[in-house]
Amino acid sequence: MNNFDFYSPTYFAFGKDRELDSGELVKRFGGTKVLIHYGGGSVVRSGLLDRVKASLDAVGVTWLELGGVKPNPRSGLVYRGIELCRREYIDFVLAVGGGSTIDSAKAIAAGTVYDGDFWDFYSGRHIDKALPVGTVLTIAAAGSEGSPDSVITNENGMLKRGASGDAIRPKFSILNPALTQTLPPYQTACGITDIMAHLYERYLTNTHDVEVTDRLIEALLLTMVHEGPRVIEDPNNYEARANIMWAGMMAHNNSCGVGRSQDWNSHNIEHELSALYDCAHGAGLAVTMPAVFAYVMQHDVMRFAQVASRVWGCQMDFAHPEVTAKAGIEALRVFLNSIGMPKTLGELGGKEEDIPKLVDVLCNGDGRTGTITGFVKLNADDCAAIYRMML
Amino acid sequence: MNNFDFYSPTYFAFGKDRELDSGELVKRFGGTKVLIHYGGGSVVRSGLLDRVKASLDAVGVTWLELGGVKPNPRSGLVYRGIELCRREYIDFVLAVGGGSTIDSAKAIAAGTVYDGDFWDFYSGRHIDKALPVGTVLTIAAAGSEGSPDSVITNENGMLKRGASGDAIRPKFSILNPALTQTLPPYQTACGITDIMAHLYERYLTNTHDVEVTDRLIEALLLTMVHEGPRVIEDPNNYEARANIMWAGMMAHNNSCGVGRSQDWNSHNIEHELSALYDCAHGAGLAVTMPAVFAYVMQHDVMRFAQVASRVWGCQMDFAHPEVTAKAGIEALRVFLNSIGMPKTLGELGGKEEDIPKLVDVLCNGDGRTGTITGFVKLNADDCAAIYRMML
Repeated sequence: MNNFDFYSPTYFAFGKDRELDSGELVKRFGGTKVLIHYGGGSVVRSGLLDRVKASLDAVGVTWLELGGVKPNPRSGLVYRGIELCRREYIDFVLAVGGGSTIDSAKAIAAGTVYDGDFWDFYSGRHIDKALPVGTVLTIAAAGSEGSPDSVITNENGMLKRGASGDAIRPKFSILNPALTQTLPPYQTACGITDIMAHLYERYLTNTHDVEVTDRLIEALLLTMVHEGPRVIEDPNNYEARANIMWAGMMAHNNSCGVGRSQDWNSHNIEHELSALYDCAHGAGLAVTMPAVFAYVMQHDVMRFAQVASRVWGCQMDFAHPEVTAKAGIEALRVFLNSIGMPKTLGELGGKEEDIPKLVDVLCNGDGRTGTITGFVKLNADDCAAIYRMML
Repeated sequence: MNNFDFYSPTYFAFGKDRELDSGELVKRFGGTKVLIHYGGGSVVRSGLLDRVKASLDAVGVTWLELGGVKPNPRSGLVYRGIELCRREYIDFVLAVGGGSTIDSAKAIAAGTVYDGDFWDFYSGRHIDKALPVGTVLTIAAAGSEGSPDSVITNENGMLKRGASGDAIRPKFSILNPALTQTLPPYQTACGITDIMAHLYERYLTNTHDVEVTDRLIEALLLTMVHEGPRVIEDPNNYEARANIMWAGMMAHNNSCGVGRSQDWNSHNIEHELSALYDCAHGAGLAVTMPAVFAYVMQHDVMRFAQVASRVWGCQMDFAHPEVTAKAGIEALRVFLNSIGMPKTLGELGGKEEDIPKLVDVLCNGDGRTGTITGFVKLNADDCAAIYRMML
């Protein structure tokens, strides 16, 4: 096991009606004037935004609001949020929504107290300082509610890039599974896929002898395999929603990923798809993961056989472990398809002739020099082959 | 799933040589004058204490020391520590040792800033305020390095009781698996047993549909079943030590126990054994758990069958689930015995004629009124029967 530091100080308030504690929690973590940041109309229509505002009012915390976050959140709205926070002396950013809203809120929180262009953070600069951030989560997916990460798409060139720093870890996150019950099945499935991708990215490691984190990742994958179909069948199943929601947080606060090298090639390869086609990140991952895994399987057949056996229930073929390994990748593909996820690049709006462009941005964009690296180092030819496997 | 709050803000520094960061971490969390608290001579002999002191010196943090913590830590030393901290204006307590040392340090930290008798906290009063605590862990067992809990034995009547509060959660914990390599096999096995008990206490729940936490607990149990024998066979196996050490923390910071009722009857029943006979807590649990589980199995046969099947690899007998349930309890007993743990009360120094006294203190001591409760409510007759099963 590698040496590591682990720090996850977010206060989680989980369960029914917990959004009613928003005001109390903002106050506990020092907020007096809040920017409520959100996306589209669903948090308005459902009455959630009004409940949050009433909770802030009840404890005497003042607020302003900024809506309009889109999936694959954009730099333009971040700049507007930063300007607003500075002008209005905001001292707390409260995200009400899913991963896109939270990521946008984190970018605003960091950018407000930074002298330069906030995009510096998304070009490699570490985030050391930010306004405090809180979240009221409405989608179990990105894990941003418990992570120090944020992903933003720069409208100038449609570059989708990440930034990181403990300063943008939410001070608190409110997780009410009932808030996810109104999500359409497609978005629910995208969330499930994203959570599973966060687990697979950590599972694919070159560090030996990491049984405890292997087992924890498998535990969360098994949860998704069990609870995913239950929630697709019955969107109002609170218990299934609750299990998925906690798994989603645990999958990405890194308690299961410590002390081991990780992959993240699937995320990198997918990011170009959602940046170019504006498809849902989860849907992109559903197409990307099986292709990547099939391409890199030979790098460590036993690792793929292990997940096939322990998570997917494939019989281990001791004479031909690659048979088991392949069966596990196929089981993942079938599972994702069964919950409504796409199988091909075409279903995402992608075209074969875009592949050179996708590969070029992926391998040479933003400071990269011809390769991406993780579980396996991949060059432009590898990436092109992987994109072609998705056709 | 029940509503819950989860908060685990401890900073974990894990890996080889991490004790060299003691000074830096004390300073980061505001300490300027430290009480170094420890147990016997092993941390002196190994040179660990000197390395910690040198690390404090290097960053200009001053320190005093108080050794002498015994297993099942006593109130007497806590009173001495409190007096010392007050007299010397100590502002940080650094525990260097195992669970007993950490629990004693937590008691001192809470007692120093409290006007009354610190034992109030161990008689039910919540801990709201304490000096900051840090830890350098030398035994993977108690999980106190990531928990808000402390257990102290009052020499006046040998009452062993717990206290709790986020204020005594360690600000940081240093986990260097190499420090545990010098532990004798018996103590290593006691630690493994304690960790497994923390998992079983959470597993035995009356809350339905808690797949995610079930799976996480099973993951950590599987880790112990796999790594335990490896470390008993080769005490210098760093990788096995590392897996056990992280599992020990995760087993007790409650990330796997949230949103569900828990048991803790085995701990309560054992506490009377280690209080009266001064036996190792883990050894007491090894004798207690199989007896308790066999006694309460009928309350939820399928739960015991589940752990038997998923953790112990017992074939599920679908026609007679109780057969599988029993096989799982027997597998646990055999496992604990195989790593060197005792099977009977006699091996702990216990005698049949003590049972009435054990039961009386257990069921009527410290504000209890004839029963203990958890997975199942147990009265004095039940507890006597359980103690007799250990003979």
